[in-house]
Amino acid sequence: MIKTIGILGGGQLGRMLSMAAARLGIKTHIFEPSENPPAGDVAHRVFTAPYQDHSALRDFANSVDVVTYEFENIPAEAIDIIENITPVLPRRNALATSQDRIIEKLFLQEIGVAVAPFAKVDTLEDLTKAIDKIGTPSILKTRRFGYDGKGQVMIKSDTLAHDAFAALKGSAAVLEGFVDFEREVSVIAARNSKGDISCFDPGENVHINGILHTTTVPAKLSHSSQTDAILLAARILNALDYIGVMGVELFVTGDGLVVNEIAPRVHNSGHWTQNACVIDQFEQHIRALAGLPLGDGQRHSDAEMTNLIGKDILQPEIYDNCALHLYGKAQVKEGRKMGHFNRISPKSA
Amino acid sequence: MIKTIGILGGGQLGRMLSMAAARLGIKTHIFEPSENPPAGDVAHRVFTAPYQDHSALRDFANSVDVVTYEFENIPAEAIDIIENITPVLPRRNALATSQDRIIEKLFLQEIGVAVAPFAKVDTLEDLTKAIDKIGTPSILKTRRFGYDGKGQVMIKSDTLAHDAFAALKGSAAVLEGFVDFEREVSVIAARNSKGDISCFDPGENVHINGILHTTTVPAKLSHSSQTDAILLAARILNALDYIGVMGVELFVTGDGLVVNEIAPRVHNSGHWTQNACVIDQFEQHIRALAGLPLGDGQRHSDAEMTNLIGKDILQPEIYDNCALHLYGKAQVKEGRKMGHFNRISPKSA
Repeated sequence: MIKTIGILGGGQLGRMLSMAAARLGIKTHIFEPSENPPAGDVAHRVFTAPYQDHSALRDFANSVDVVTYEFENIPAEAIDIIENITPVLPRRNALATSQDRIIEKLFLQEIGVAVAPFAKVDTLEDLTKAIDKIGTPSILKTRRFGYDGKGQVMIKSDTLAHDAFAALKGSAAVLEGFVDFEREVSVIAARNSKGDISCFDPGENVHINGILHTTTVPAKLSHSSQTDAILLAARILNALDYIGVMGVELFVTGDGLVVNEIAPRVHNSGHWTQNACVIDQFEQHIRALAGLPLGDGQRHSDAEMTNLIGKDILQPEIYDNCALHLYGKAQVKEGRKMGHFNRISPKSA
Repeated sequence: MIKTIGILGGGQLGRMLSMAAARLGIKTHIFEPSENPPAGDVAHRVFTAPYQDHSALRDFANSVDVVTYEFENIPAEAIDIIENITPVLPRRNALATSQDRIIEKLFLQEIGVAVAPFAKVDTLEDLTKAIDKIGTPSILKTRRFGYDGKGQVMIKSDTLAHDAFAALKGSAAVLEGFVDFEREVSVIAARNSKGDISCFDPGENVHINGILHTTTVPAKLSHSSQTDAILLAARILNALDYIGVMGVELFVTGDGLVVNEIAPRVHNSGHWTQNACVIDQFEQHIRALAGLPLGDGQRHSDAEMTNLIGKDILQPEIYDNCALHLYGKAQVKEGRKMGHFNRISPKSA
C-alpha cells in the first residue's frame, strides 16, 4: 500500500498533487532545489537540495513508496539514483520521450500519430536546409528544456537563418513547420498499471505570449474529432505502457488532429477538472500511482479556467465568486504563474 | 493582509481548513497536543504542546496573523494568552456560548429562537425535579465537552434518576426534553467582519449511534421552512457579531424549527459543500477570517455525504467513483471518523 509519495519539483503542480494525495490520506515528500517551494506548504516533508546531491536523492527515495515528478526536465542521473531504491512513475521511457522534441516526434510518427513536419538542426547549414525543405512560417525550437514559449524563434520569409540560429545559443534544435490550425485542444488522459484508461473531456486552449491563458470545456469539436482525440491519447499511453496522467496538446486542422506535444505529468490545461469533475487530474494521477480505481473522467459542469499571470493576481475583481487556486508564491513576477481560477456553468450537451 | 492562519486543533477539520487556506495562497500553523495530527501533513508548521504550555501558545500566536479553531472545547486560559498577541476568530463570545449547553440555550431563547425545554441539573434533587417538570422521554447531557453522543443519558419512564445521575459522574448537566422531530437539518452559515452573511442550502442529517452518518442536500423542507432556517441562522450570527462559519443544527417539527445546538466552526454536516459548491465551507471560513469576499453559497449539484466510521474505510467498494476525503489517521478505531465521501448528482429544483 502506498502511504507516502515523493514528488520531484515543488512548484504549483507539486502543490496541487500534494493536496490531492492528502484527500486520499496519502502523505507527500517534496524534493526541490530552491527554498520555500509552493508545494512545501502542504507537504509532510521537504528535501531542499540540488538534483546533483546524490545523498539527498537517496534519503528522499528511501523516505517514500513511489516517486513522481511535476516537470519533465529532470536529469537522467537523478532518476538513476532514485530508481535503484524506489519506483519512478510515469516510467522513464515517457520522460526520455518527452524531454526531447525529436525523440518525441519520431515516437509519435512511429505509432501513426500526425505531427508537424520537422527537421533536426545542429548547425547553421542544417537550418538553411531545413528552411528550404519545410518553408516558412516555421518555428525553430530547442530540442530540450523549452516551456511557456521559451527557447523558440519564429522563422518568417524575411528572417535570416544566421540570426535565428544565433538566438538559440548553440542548443540542439528542431525546425517545426507551422501548423495552420483552427484551434488548439488538449486531452488529459490517465492510465493505471492494469491498463485501464480514463480521459477527461478535451479542453480548448488559448495562449497569450506563448503562455496558456484559458482552457474552455467543452471544446468546440465535432463528435468524431472528440472521439479521435481520445483514441489518439489512448494510443500514446498504451504505446508507452504509461502509468499516471499525461497532457496531450493537439492542433485541430482541416486534415484532422496533429499532436503538438505531450507532457508526462499533470498539465495546466487540466486545471479546470478541479471544479468540474468529482475526481480531478491531480487526484487521478495519485490514484494511478497508488493503484486505486481511476475516476471516470466525467464532468458535472462546463468550465473555463483562466491563469493568473504576474500582476493579474492583484485584480481580485476578475475572479469574484469563482473557484480560486493561488500558489502561495511570495513574489509577483512578470510572466510567472501565480494562480488560476475556474468559472463553472451548468453542463451543456 | 492575512498570510498565515493559526488553527487550534489538528484533526480532520483542521486538515481540511489547511487545504482550503492553501487554495487561497495562505499558510497554516497547527497547535495540537498529540503527535502527528492529521492536519500536520498539509500545514506549513505544527506546534506540538499541551494547551497549558503558555510559552508554546505565545510562540504559536506570534507566528500567525489570526487564530481560529476546529473544536469548541478550548481552555479559556489558552484563548486569553493568544488574544493578548493576535485576534482569535470566531470571537470568544461564540466560544463561551457554545461551550456550555445552558448558556447556549439561554442565549438562543433571548434572541427568540425556539429550543427544547430544559432544566439545569447539578444535584440528584435537581434531576428529580427536572424530570417532574419536563417529563420523559428526555435526555440528560453534560453541560460541556459532549460530542458525537458522548456525555448523554436517555431518560425513559422507567429510568431511575439515581442511575442516570451517577452515569454522568458528577458533571454539571442539563435535562433536555425530547423533541418529537420529523427530521434533523443543519444550516452552515458564514458571516464576515462587514456583516455580510452567506448560507449554504440546508442539509438533512441522519445519525447512527449518535454519530452523523449521512447529510443529504437538498433537505426535504418546505420553501417556508427553508427560509425560516436561513433567517434563524442569520439571527444567531448577527446577535453574536460573528466572524467565520457556524454549523446550526435544527429539528424540524410540526410547530416549526427548534435549534438543537450550534457549533462555532466548520461542521461535519457541511462536508458535502466540498464537491457541490464552488466555494466550500472550509474556504468560506478562511475567507471570512481573511476578509476576502464570501462565496454565495449556491450549490451546483445535489449531494449526499457519508461518513466513513472505523472499519467503513476498509470497504472501498462503497465509495467507488465518489469524491473521497480521507483524513490520514494511522489507526482505525471503532467510532473514529476516518474519512467521508460525497456522491453528487445533477441539481434538482
